Amino acid sequence: MANPTAAMLVIGDEILSGRTRDANMFYLAGELANHGIDLKEVRVVSDDAQAIVTAVTALSGGYDHIFTSGGIGPTHDDITADCIARAFDAPIDVRDDARAILEEHYRQNGRELNAARLRMARIPEGASLIENPVSSAPGFTLRNVHVMAGVPTVFQAMVASVLATIAGGAPLLSQTLRINRGEGEIADGLSAVAKAHPEVSIGCYPFQHNGAFGANVVVRSTDGRQIEAAMSDLASRLEL
Amino acid sequence: MANPTAAMLVIGDEILSGRTRDANMFYLAGELANHGIDLKEVRVVSDDAQAIVTAVTALSGGYDHIFTSGGIGPTHDDITADCIARAFDAPIDVRDDARAILEEHYRQNGRELNAARLRMARIPEGASLIENPVSSAPGFTLRNVHVMAGVPTVFQAMVASVLATIAGGAPLLSQTLRINRGEGEIADGLSAVAKAHPEVSIGCYPFQHNGAFGANVVVRSTDGRQIEAAMSDLASRLEL
Repeated sequence: MANPTAAMLVIGDEILSGRTRDANMFYLAGELANHGIDLKEVRVVSDDAQAIVTAVTALSGGYDHIFTSGGIGPTHDDITADCIARAFDAPIDVRDDARAILEEHYRQNGRELNAARLRMARIPEGASLIENPVSSAPGFTLRNVHVMAGVPTVFQAMVASVLATIAGGAPLLSQTLRINRGEGEIADGLSAVAKAHPEVSIGCYPFQHNGAFGANVVVRSTDGRQIEAAMSDLASRLEL
Repeated sequence: MANPTAAMLVIGDEILSGRTRDANMFYLAGELANHGIDLKEVRVVSDDAQAIVTAVTALSGGYDHIFTSGGIGPTHDDITADCIARAFDAPIDVRDDARAILEEHYRQNGRELNAARLRMARIPEGASLIENPVSSAPGFTLRNVHVMAGVPTVFQAMVASVLATIAGGAPLLSQTLRINRGEGEIADGLSAVAKAHPEVSIGCYPFQHNGAFGANVVVRSTDGRQIEAAMSDLASRLEL
């Protein structure tokens, strides 16, 4: 059976402006591979309502799971929850269960649950909450969209919460072979192996480092035996 | 006059599988900000022809410039050039000017320009070449799509070649104010400043570090005076 598919939507001017180097995409990609969910596409859009709604609508129709990152805090630029609600035509308002979580958190910290913070309890109707063990303000899942924070520590904790609730498939396995020859010299052998083993995915990534050059050949599959077979074929064709 | 807009398309299973942490998106975002081109969207897709063609078609119609990264080497998984040609219904074949560049490069290096390497001279009709001072195999520009290599050193050199040929606008400037208060305490002030200064973009990025927490407020605009005005308003409203 094929693995479930996924897409990620990163919401953040700070990525597009070059201020911040994305960390969440790299983290999620690794977790999904381990969990047997195939990440097929990532989009990064700015903090713009129309851009977010358009992307969520397109991705949600095309993949089994959508993971979003960013824009669910208390400030004016945090518009993700409202955009997700709009994409699914769902009403949104402060919800009692989310408010209770925030009340408890701020009570414990001796800080005020003011109007700005209460915005973080705005949850679309029909959504289930995603636990946030780091800073309490919850994410949520609406239909097949998992809405999470952009702060990497919080994002990572939420990914763990979500993955515990959804069924994955077989983990994506990979083996890498480092070859100290130019890509152009191994291309024919690689191509023959790719044709002979259509069930694995074979990528070739050239490197150049301190004057040495070569390529890393990565063979990926959910079946370890298929990877072994392709690797052994590769070694023989390239006379390694 | 508004700055030109741009999107980026990253082509690479190695990003989606979690093997590689993207570097090119971060680099391009910074360069475009300096060059006065507004990066509005990034998509990452796998080495899949249909996914690449669909994304190129969508992005090319929506933005002034599209920058792609990855998939233009000599191996079987390098299918970007053919996909770009297909997206624009342009014929593609080995082109003499690109072949001459490769011949010269491999002659100098005492290596053979074999059939696999010659694939890197496949250029869609109507495209202009993008210089590659690192490893010679050229990228190309077809219509508003700039097709570049995925290896970061080559990508960066190609970005420089392309940006020298296209008109930018006013560079995106930014100032950051680090505030040692929770987002929820400054949200109202921020929101008021955002409303009073619609010509700047204001982002708020919380941090939590060694028990200290707070937020970085980033004000962005192509006009330094507008940033100053918003910052000064912010300082006064937040009583800094």
